[in-house]
Amino acid sequence: MTKLRIVPLGGLGEVGKNMMCIEYGRNIMVVDVGIMFPEADMPGIDYILPNWEYLNDKKDLVRAVLVTHGHQDHIGGLAHFLKDFNVPIYATKLTRGLIEVRLRQEGMLERATLHNYAPGDVINIGPFAVEPYHVCHSIPDTVGLGIETPAGLIVHSGDFKFDHTPVDKWITDYNKLAEFSVRGVLALLSDSTNADQPGNTLSEAVLDNAFHQIMREAPGRVIVATFASLISRVQQVVDVASLYERKVAVAGRSMIENTAMARELGYLDIPEDMLISLAEAERLPPQQVLIMATGSQGEPMAVLNRLATDRHATLRIQEQDTVVFSSHTIPGNEELTHSVINRLFQRGADVYYHPLAQVHVSGHASQEEQKLLINLLRPRFFVPIHGELRHLKQHGKLAREVGIPEENVAVVENGYPLIFAEEQMTIGERVPGYYVFVDGALVGEVGPQVIQERDKLGQSGFVTAVLHYDRQKGKAVGQPRIITRGFVFTPGAEDLLSRAADVIRSAASVKSGTSSSKVEDRVERALSDFFYRETRRNPMVTVAAVEE
Amino acid sequence: MTKLRIVPLGGLGEVGKNMMCIEYGRNIMVVDVGIMFPEADMPGIDYILPNWEYLNDKKDLVRAVLVTHGHQDHIGGLAHFLKDFNVPIYATKLTRGLIEVRLRQEGMLERATLHNYAPGDVINIGPFAVEPYHVCHSIPDTVGLGIETPAGLIVHSGDFKFDHTPVDKWITDYNKLAEFSVRGVLALLSDSTNADQPGNTLSEAVLDNAFHQIMREAPGRVIVATFASLISRVQQVVDVASLYERKVAVAGRSMIENTAMARELGYLDIPEDMLISLAEAERLPPQQVLIMATGSQGEPMAVLNRLATDRHATLRIQEQDTVVFSSHTIPGNEELTHSVINRLFQRGADVYYHPLAQVHVSGHASQEEQKLLINLLRPRFFVPIHGELRHLKQHGKLAREVGIPEENVAVVENGYPLIFAEEQMTIGERVPGYYVFVDGALVGEVGPQVIQERDKLGQSGFVTAVLHYDRQKGKAVGQPRIITRGFVFTPGAEDLLSRAADVIRSAASVKSGTSSSKVEDRVERALSDFFYRETRRNPMVTVAAVEE
Repeated sequence: MTKLRIVPLGGLGEVGKNMMCIEYGRNIMVVDVGIMFPEADMPGIDYILPNWEYLNDKKDLVRAVLVTHGHQDHIGGLAHFLKDFNVPIYATKLTRGLIEVRLRQEGMLERATLHNYAPGDVINIGPFAVEPYHVCHSIPDTVGLGIETPAGLIVHSGDFKFDHTPVDKWITDYNKLAEFSVRGVLALLSDSTNADQPGNTLSEAVLDNAFHQIMREAPGRVIVATFASLISRVQQVVDVASLYERKVAVAGRSMIENTAMARELGYLDIPEDMLISLAEAERLPPQQVLIMATGSQGEPMAVLNRLATDRHATLRIQEQDTVVFSSHTIPGNEELTHSVINRLFQRGADVYYHPLAQVHVSGHASQEEQKLLINLLRPRFFVPIHGELRHLKQHGKLAREVGIPEENVAVVENGYPLIFAEEQMTIGERVPGYYVFVDGALVGEVGPQVIQERDKLGQSGFVTAVLHYDRQKGKAVGQPRIITRGFVFTPGAEDLLSRAADVIRSAASVKSGTSSSKVEDRVERALSDFFYRETRRNPMVTVAAVEE
Repeated sequence: MTKLRIVPLGGLGEVGKNMMCIEYGRNIMVVDVGIMFPEADMPGIDYILPNWEYLNDKKDLVRAVLVTHGHQDHIGGLAHFLKDFNVPIYATKLTRGLIEVRLRQEGMLERATLHNYAPGDVINIGPFAVEPYHVCHSIPDTVGLGIETPAGLIVHSGDFKFDHTPVDKWITDYNKLAEFSVRGVLALLSDSTNADQPGNTLSEAVLDNAFHQIMREAPGRVIVATFASLISRVQQVVDVASLYERKVAVAGRSMIENTAMARELGYLDIPEDMLISLAEAERLPPQQVLIMATGSQGEPMAVLNRLATDRHATLRIQEQDTVVFSSHTIPGNEELTHSVINRLFQRGADVYYHPLAQVHVSGHASQEEQKLLINLLRPRFFVPIHGELRHLKQHGKLAREVGIPEENVAVVENGYPLIFAEEQMTIGERVPGYYVFVDGALVGEVGPQVIQERDKLGQSGFVTAVLHYDRQKGKAVGQPRIITRGFVFTPGAEDLLSRAADVIRSAASVKSGTSSSKVEDRVERALSDFFYRETRRNPMVTVAAVEE
């Protein structure tokens, strides 16, 4: 009997966030292909792709990619995916615009087939009927997906919140959800990001007060930093700024590209005469200027960090500037963000950030909204997605609180297929997959071993010993050469290094005829022991015994 | 004319948190000597000392160290300090106990002169009269300091909060503060840690509800992790556990040492028959067991991380365990802590952490309490301390809101002396100082250059090329040797490395007689360019051209 399979792909991070497969018979649809950002224990990695190796022998079966919204963790992997799979991509208008910006940057736009879909559409793909429906999130034009399958109706929430007063006035589609509920929902897959936040997520409307106060009281320029894709925040800030007769300049490549595209598509309403260049902004009285900028995470190359360290080509922080961080800090970026804030203060700016002022709200549902979605849909099975294990567990608890039986809730990690047949849900065998690290031009060539080496090098540096080895005499000839970086400050460590040279010579005194590789092993062990004894550190030690 | 000088010492972090000097004429008192914990951009560093080089030519003038409380960021540097300065240390009873534990660990206990002081005492040190007064904080026996000086009365708040219902029932000493106010306060130096938190910090009493609920509902063992020095939290958890007839086992060296010491000194009241060993805990029914453990920050070697990764010698996480993180996560530790939480869930435990449950409150005053302290004391001058620049700026704003004139508020960074004379406050020239990195047995030998090298190595690894160079012929002899770690996975990169060997040979083809160091430079540049072109990465490249 044919079964419906739903497979979240990716590594240890958020489940199903970046990619998910929905399969029936010889038909596979992919929901989102995004990127993850590296954690602290993945040094040097630019970003991470979900590993879709599992699909490699199913290439003919993949029919389409359905995209829920335009954030990088949902679209950032499409360029790589299209190199392996030549399939159409479905997206709403703004999402498509953001996908095109990214594909163009990566030189893949010509190879892509893009289709628009919109709330209300029904798209038939093989045995599936896909019905996108509108949800509120921190970017306009976000959808959840109703998917009719031969096994029953699946609802995939996408990233969502219930905001009664969103900036674009377009609320989450309660009617459609009620209609799904009447039809009967086999399984709900729902966003767990904020499952550890009690209550309801605040509406974007609450930010108006803070922005009004800031624009009113700021003695000079106002610089607002947020995510380049947070189009609705840009609209909101610009709307308030216009009331205080401030003109708007945009700084930062991705912010410039996204706002241009969103204006063109009609998702961002900024009158032509309100937009000015950075050069024009310099000539206006400071109280008439608003600058929208990138860098709210403290990213070293973004506008805000450049301003904080005085490395921006044209902009310079002035005494009366007010800087607003209108974003939450992604875990892991706290130190960087705080250091940028401190440096902006140091240069004389006034800085607003959460919790000092209510300048950001989350785009994800909190516990009460998560329960509301479950109660609206009354699904038979519940699968928390889009969160780490701790969020999924909590979301599972909430589902049980509102009456979903424990055995009908499936908390799974990436790679575990959920199998639906005859009104039953089971969990299948783990499929291959994990992370693919992207590091410069290296895609997938940097794996866990290299990461481990980087970690060790980053902790204690390295020492490479180069010696001339005379195999016949079984000893080192002349002075060994010691190259070291990231271990000790060499001008101050002559004594340590000259004693290390003695250690090398003595470890290289061996029986005549001993192979150089044996000598290398001996020297490496002796040096490692020596350095640990002397410094309580373990630098990475390598040895090259060059034979005469 | 003799002036009063107050000098906060340390690096870019929190101002005056770890060390502060109070000087008048030929008399210097030091308040606290603590350690900082390294940030993400200080790889491999164990901890950081404030640099007290400024005191080196004033050794005879240093009269005493006054300690406000027993946290490591206030006492952890004393062992190092005593090696340079043989001066008496004043501390309250519990604080002294914690200092003794640390000095014993570092083999410095015999060389220390420790004096007790207590709220109500007046200690005369040269021209100073020091009056410790009790304040609430997240550790018992914390004091603030009133310091009568020839220039006027200085109040140093220490770390504090106003808790009306603290665990040890000992509230912050309002009477003493009122008395100081009547005498007239020249300057208040006040804790800014929570200056960006509106309202009042919650009382420790609010935690009782959460602990009652957890102990009542937990189907098996309860494991509570917190800071080893959070003695009052241990008391609170144990008190609730006893109502549910759970016995207490303690896991983790520092937790064991601190609870033993605190019991001995009477700061921790755990009846003998309630304390059990981990071995005994294994034999009791799980619902009768509470385990207090270290590792609430996810530290790799602490109990909780060992449990999460199944590396603990005797304990093992079981299906029905409940784990509580009763602490806040120090910025920078989020990813580590979240990963430990996820792994504990993975092993079947239920996990409570903030904000899922109210299992931790801060030990520092929030905005309303900070304003209360200023209003209680009505100081002439106000100096925000114990915070990053962003906190100090905010605290300065609060002071102005409650009526301290702008020109009487001094926001300074570490190293800037505040000078008081004739009822005036001025800011002096920056004194030398900064950080001293402690890295294994290396104290102060690892500086910014080594840290930069580690950073680069941690991002992209290294490549060392070793070649035989024949100066007469001006070329490399035989195959160059390439050693690389943390850059590319070598079994998969043969092609890249064999092309790199060609690059080396060709860069080493030079005019006859060229020096080997010139050849090394040429090869290094050529290799760096080659690798960047091929991989868009910049590994650290070093070259050893060994002459025939």
